[in-house]
Amino acid sequence: MDSIGLLSSVLCKHWFHPPVVAIWTDGATLSAWSEVEVALAAAQAELGLIPADAAATIARRLEGVKLDPQRLAADIAHTMHPFVPVLHQLEELCGEPAAAYLHWGATTQNIFDTGAALQLKRSHALLLESIDQALAALATLARDHRDTPQAGRTHGQHALPITFGFKVAAWHAEMRRHRERLVSASHGAFIASMGGAVGAFAAMAGRGREVQALVAQRLGLESNELPVRCAYDHTAAYVSALAMMGSTVEKIAGEVFTLQRSEIAEVEEGFHRGKVGSSTMAQKRNPGLVMNLTGLSRLLRSRVPIALEAIVRHDEGDGASNNICDVTLPETVICAVSLAHGLARLAEGLVVDPAAMSRNLGRSGGLIVSEAVMMALAPHIGRHHAHKVLYDVAQDTAEGGGSFATRLRDHSLVQPLLDRLDIDVLLDPARYVGEAPDCVDDELAR
Amino acid sequence: MDSIGLLSSVLCKHWFHPPVVAIWTDGATLSAWSEVEVALAAAQAELGLIPADAAATIARRLEGVKLDPQRLAADIAHTMHPFVPVLHQLEELCGEPAAAYLHWGATTQNIFDTGAALQLKRSHALLLESIDQALAALATLARDHRDTPQAGRTHGQHALPITFGFKVAAWHAEMRRHRERLVSASHGAFIASMGGAVGAFAAMAGRGREVQALVAQRLGLESNELPVRCAYDHTAAYVSALAMMGSTVEKIAGEVFTLQRSEIAEVEEGFHRGKVGSSTMAQKRNPGLVMNLTGLSRLLRSRVPIALEAIVRHDEGDGASNNICDVTLPETVICAVSLAHGLARLAEGLVVDPAAMSRNLGRSGGLIVSEAVMMALAPHIGRHHAHKVLYDVAQDTAEGGGSFATRLRDHSLVQPLLDRLDIDVLLDPARYVGEAPDCVDDELAR
Amino acid sequence: MDSIGLLSSVLCKHWFHPPVVAIWTDGATLSAWSEVEVALAAAQAELGLIPADAAATIARRLEGVKLDPQRLAADIAHTMHPFVPVLHQLEELCGEPAAAYLHWGATTQNIFDTGAALQLKRSHALLLESIDQALAALATLARDHRDTPQAGRTHGQHALPITFGFKVAAWHAEMRRHRERLVSASHGAFIASMGGAVGAFAAMAGRGREVQALVAQRLGLESNELPVRCAYDHTAAYVSALAMMGSTVEKIAGEVFTLQRSEIAEVEEGFHRGKVGSSTMAQKRNPGLVMNLTGLSRLLRSRVPIALEAIVRHDEGDGASNNICDVTLPETVICAVSLAHGLARLAEGLVVDPAAMSRNLGRSGGLIVSEAVMMALAPHIGRHHAHKVLYDVAQDTAEGGGSFATRLRDHSLVQPLLDRLDIDVLLDPARYVGEAPDCVDDELAR
Amino acid sequence: MDSIGLLSSVLCKHWFHPPVVAIWTDGATLSAWSEVEVALAAAQAELGLIPADAAATIARRLEGVKLDPQRLAADIAHTMHPFVPVLHQLEELCGEPAAAYLHWGATTQNIFDTGAALQLKRSHALLLESIDQALAALATLARDHRDTPQAGRTHGQHALPITFGFKVAAWHAEMRRHRERLVSASHGAFIASMGGAVGAFAAMAGRGREVQALVAQRLGLESNELPVRCAYDHTAAYVSALAMMGSTVEKIAGEVFTLQRSEIAEVEEGFHRGKVGSSTMAQKRNPGLVMNLTGLSRLLRSRVPIALEAIVRHDEGDGASNNICDVTLPETVICAVSLAHGLARLAEGLVVDPAAMSRNLGRSGGLIVSEAVMMALAPHIGRHHAHKVLYDVAQDTAEGGGSFATRLRDHSLVQPLLDRLDIDVLLDPARYVGEAPDCVDDELAR
Repeated sequence: MDSIGLLSSVLCKHWFHPPVVAIWTDGATLSAWSEVEVALAAAQAELGLIPADAAATIARRLEGVKLDPQRLAADIAHTMHPFVPVLHQLEELCGEPAAAYLHWGATTQNIFDTGAALQLKRSHALLLESIDQALAALATLARDHRDTPQAGRTHGQHALPITFGFKVAAWHAEMRRHRERLVSASHGAFIASMGGAVGAFAAMAGRGREVQALVAQRLGLESNELPVRCAYDHTAAYVSALAMMGSTVEKIAGEVFTLQRSEIAEVEEGFHRGKVGSSTMAQKRNPGLVMNLTGLSRLLRSRVPIALEAIVRHDEGDGASNNICDVTLPETVICAVSLAHGLARLAEGLVVDPAAMSRNLGRSGGLIVSEAVMMALAPHIGRHHAHKVLYDVAQDTAEGGGSFATRLRDHSLVQPLLDRLDIDVLLDPARYVGEAPDCVDDELAR
Repeated sequence: MDSIGLLSSVLCKHWFHPPVVAIWTDGATLSAWSEVEVALAAAQAELGLIPADAAATIARRLEGVKLDPQRLAADIAHTMHPFVPVLHQLEELCGEPAAAYLHWGATTQNIFDTGAALQLKRSHALLLESIDQALAALATLARDHRDTPQAGRTHGQHALPITFGFKVAAWHAEMRRHRERLVSASHGAFIASMGGAVGAFAAMAGRGREVQALVAQRLGLESNELPVRCAYDHTAAYVSALAMMGSTVEKIAGEVFTLQRSEIAEVEEGFHRGKVGSSTMAQKRNPGLVMNLTGLSRLLRSRVPIALEAIVRHDEGDGASNNICDVTLPETVICAVSLAHGLARLAEGLVVDPAAMSRNLGRSGGLIVSEAVMMALAPHIGRHHAHKVLYDVAQDTAEGGGSFATRLRDHSLVQPLLDRLDIDVLLDPARYVGEAPDCVDDELAR
Repeated sequence: MDSIGLLSSVLCKHWFHPPVVAIWTDGATLSAWSEVEVALAAAQAELGLIPADAAATIARRLEGVKLDPQRLAADIAHTMHPFVPVLHQLEELCGEPAAAYLHWGATTQNIFDTGAALQLKRSHALLLESIDQALAALATLARDHRDTPQAGRTHGQHALPITFGFKVAAWHAEMRRHRERLVSASHGAFIASMGGAVGAFAAMAGRGREVQALVAQRLGLESNELPVRCAYDHTAAYVSALAMMGSTVEKIAGEVFTLQRSEIAEVEEGFHRGKVGSSTMAQKRNPGLVMNLTGLSRLLRSRVPIALEAIVRHDEGDGASNNICDVTLPETVICAVSLAHGLARLAEGLVVDPAAMSRNLGRSGGLIVSEAVMMALAPHIGRHHAHKVLYDVAQDTAEGGGSFATRLRDHSLVQPLLDRLDIDVLLDPARYVGEAPDCVDDELAR
Repeated sequence: MDSIGLLSSVLCKHWFHPPVVAIWTDGATLSAWSEVEVALAAAQAELGLIPADAAATIARRLEGVKLDPQRLAADIAHTMHPFVPVLHQLEELCGEPAAAYLHWGATTQNIFDTGAALQLKRSHALLLESIDQALAALATLARDHRDTPQAGRTHGQHALPITFGFKVAAWHAEMRRHRERLVSASHGAFIASMGGAVGAFAAMAGRGREVQALVAQRLGLESNELPVRCAYDHTAAYVSALAMMGSTVEKIAGEVFTLQRSEIAEVEEGFHRGKVGSSTMAQKRNPGLVMNLTGLSRLLRSRVPIALEAIVRHDEGDGASNNICDVTLPETVICAVSLAHGLARLAEGLVVDPAAMSRNLGRSGGLIVSEAVMMALAPHIGRHHAHKVLYDVAQDTAEGGGSFATRLRDHSLVQPLLDRLDIDVLLDPARYVGEAPDCVDDELAR
């Protein structure tokens, strides 16, 4: 078992959504590179820069290309170059004279960047698919629980009531915004770059920009507006957008983690017989998917500083940055798609317990709606004085125990107003959810 | 001298662009909060939720508000709350009965977030101004040096010729893209939030969404589509865009640093008599602004993980995240604007030495244009074989010394072609700048 | 109110422990620099490199030095040098001829680094004091609750019982180890550096290493073993140790946050009348200190990448790294000391509710001690089969409801063993705390 | 070619030192876990907690264990548990009745953490070996170039002369300190943890601490002083020390990168025929190893925030943190050892060109030793006035051109002293290397 590493180890490779993994294997990467070489030759043939025959042979021979991995590994180590050994095998496959026209006027990083753009574009489609699946599941949850009262909490303490649908609608809104940002960041991020060694198309006989435009067109990419190799803002912006989406998934996972706590128990991630929580504590029903998503998001987020720092490049080309970007991008994208897909599964499988929500909401004996009382007092004694009243009564209750309602009624500023205030109604949390249900409707209508 | 900290110490406060600093002082922050309270009262009066008189008094009394900083500091420490002591002073300023209607239905974080949005919007205008100034200076440099040949370098080694204008055009393009991203990220980032304690408008008598829309309108902000306090994606996206722009400034600064090195000396950042490089080495002309920008960018970038992690919030409100976002955002924005402004100054003052560029370009005796020879050989012997020829001759020259041109002419595969190749022309770097000048034109036309 | 920034704003400056802030104000920094110049002159006089009179005058005139901050700020901005304007004011204070011997053979960064070492050393003493205070408070808590049963939780779910003292003992152990690491990291971190411009003592007449040793001795520092200005490992290691300690404080704070949640309510951070949780929810008793410590730790941790990256310096001196290290170090140290001090306050004020712990422990009807039953079954049917039995019964209970004990007794593999197992005893969580109390004793004995 | 990921892809797996990779493959990890289970059974048998026969069978059957990877991957995905499926295969291998005593009283994370400690310890030995090899090579370089003059640079500008040996001695010193820190951090980091589910040894019949001590002894590890699963400071401290060492390797690599720049060309990393710089620029001799080390260091450093944040854990166990630590630790350690090993290769292969150093040193016509002249003038006119003289002359030279020496001699304050100063001697950079050679001797003697 020589398997090793985040994406390869049998211990963790199930964390990742298989279709996106398949886009980034070595085999798929080499295929993407071949597609780029084929498109380059075709474009150059079209413009008369290389013979049409050569381009045709290249296209035919590189279709479904398979290379010798052992030899490749050895040659890459020896040449200390990640592409020249690939190129040599491709030349052999093409044979003479076509081999002579392969990689014409290009440099390694052109092939790498354009190939990665192809892979990114394919991953992006999967990403949107998973986000849409998650949005649909969240929308269903929000709709179903539009009116399910639940304790709203701030800083770990009961704050005011909400509805569970309101909470989920906010998750939906955040994921929807990430989707918009990702689509926006994708523009200009999936680009064909054929500028050659320093980006100035030196070896393209003055027709480099045309060549690049044709390559882009053939591959379904945009043409890099100025293909210097020392620009990374396009990809960094996309990576940042991925990580921000991942952070929202982590937030939602964290909320489920909290709400699933033994003492709260308002929701539970999907469970199936056979899912094991512990090798020694048989009763455990852990939020395993939740923890997995939490971890993946942190892994993803830890890659952002690499991408941002990689904007800071030396010279017309900077191998140190290229190297680490080339190896970090796949795992970044794979984490992101797996996060979106995992959120869909989490939302689809979530078990919600409205009774537990109701039970928790009632625990504080009305303290959770102290604001309702304050706002009812405010027109009579002023908002600021009302806050003081509630503060005193609530803190007395917290310290001295007893009934909040009784202590309220006994307060000298409240007593005179009792005929105008129905304390019992004010202290019913289920009546004080504000515009939560309307907010759900608004969000679902967006 | 009790001054302390990045933005306050006399040792470093000159790093920052004064107009943006002025937007984020305590005084300016308290003013922004007051503006929000005033707008809230006005909106509520307009909808009949509070008396019109109260709103008018609030507006009048809070105009140009000045608070007692000593008392504020003491009260904040005692209450362990950053706003209630402010509110108390505002209530005193308003007097009875208007004080009773201040902060009606709102929660602290509404005021903070909406106030910060006001400050962000003002900073954003300064940012675009500085970016535009930088873009203009870069455009001038690019135009002036459209045809100035310079060694293109990759991995620290001479690669192929470019023109200096081409290099600068790529900087321009990158900054232009950042400008677009920043404008895009600003949509939805400068928002009014009046959802109250948990975002569901509980204390707004069912008209919270209307109140918020009016507040937004009065303040020139967008209305938060779902004002939960646990969403931070809006601001995080904006902060990420700031940091990416900063990274590009750092890249450009790094390029100047390298090109100003004593042995390269192709450019120099502006110098004035009185600028001191060292307390002991009087000859020093350091790239001081360059280093300053480099440092600021790293400071800025180090704040991104905070913003991204702050997307991951607990509950309906999370004070730990709020706290650190509230103190990190000002320094982040200030760094960003100062970076853009610094880049403008750097570009405007840059001294360029075309003669040095030309001298360096000639150092390698033609090795820098080995690709030109390869491409000239390619139609005769194939690109792949031509690469092998050049590799052998170039490495022999590197190891054995002597003239690259002579060794080339002596190579068995080159010799037969000498009547069809003009080696001297091929080895003239100034002739091999590809489409660099055209790329400059394209960029300047965008 | 021009105050601004993390350490200066009236809105947040109360977060920080005043004694450590006092060490890093501009005034204190300038004093530290003066102390270094005085020590340098004294050392050089002792070795005969400069006149003894000059050294004496320098010492006398720079005692309790006060500089003109306005002029300093203006001159630093103009010269773009952070020290030369200071030096000029110091020279004026010394007067002729002593001024001629100030800063002899030194470079700016020598003064800065050695001055910062003095400040670091002073902060370190405060740090150890606060850690010791925290350790004492934690030890008391651990001792007092050595035998207080509490639900142990993993992944948010009830796992096995512990005692609260056991939990606190683990916090104590972790803080104790950080103390050891900090002491270890302090060796070699508080050093005098007098190597001059490039670290080779060029202007010290061949006696630089002796000068440096004397300076170190006078200032109570270690002598830098090889005073190149491009080494930062000493300080980075110390900063890392600070941030790790801060992370443990954040962990403890996070535990209190969870245990203080409304539904768990086993502990509460200290509360005093006057502490306000919300401007609108008067009942709120928020873990304000906890959130403050959480935020400070994240701020601190976000500075670690700066310090680590600052190890990677260009050349014999790298101003960009120096700049940001010089401004980041103070806030880093101040956060760290404030975290340690805050932990002491948190532990000292913590209110513990053993009854709530007991109540929560009993919630699961014995599921929390499924392992106890498994281990009792194991000698009879094998650990692996026992795990299967418990898994089935526990999951049936979770899904079907009813009594875990009854379902257990009814299981076909358990029934035959009932005369040898006392299920009631096995299901009593308070009996199954393992060696938790012994671990407390062990830790308190360390 | 399904290979994928940093450690598995054929495109980059040659970056890593094979012996350390071999320690962390899935096979090696499963072996380590088996070793731990064997040691646990043996310890328990020794104390009479399980039958001696069972322990003997377990030891025999788990020797050189091989598991079914396909089945493992499927079962891990289904159970969502990373160890229970492994345990089931181990139980099958042991057979009845021994299987009944496997994993007695332990929990999954005990096995994982103790297994990882074994792997860490083995990696640590390789690490020290590579560091020692690097130190030896650096010592040789420092000794050989003890007296080779070279331009010292600060902020990219010529500063003062040093010797190349001095520069290398500082690298040596820094790596030596890292070695000390790593050894120090290794104490307490390679520990056996057998505390069971929540760390309190609940299922060890009161003898858990003894069991753990025996396990530790058998495995050559330290016994965890308080084996809670929510402590990660031990490992985080070790990871931080690794990353700091890596940063120094990156610094050294960066220095070589700069010194190898085409215009400086004072050193070159080892080159061999067959090493390829570019697919299109045949002349390229890139610092490939240097860039590789630079990239690896950044990858390593990007993992530090994960480790530091992982100190902040929830509850008695926190699966999200465990998950990401378990997958991040291997790549972290592998990067670190590969960095140390790469530094050894870099230092051993480094080609140094003293003639180029001398040439560059002379470029400035003496400006590089302006300090020498200043210090010579200082006794006559005061250090501060001398600085002013040198500033004026140097800046005049920089702007007006001409000879620095001539301008110096012509200055009104210098002219009168010309009989007491030998300007030519003062302006000879090779004479002004200070105590650089002595510092080399000191370092080599440490």
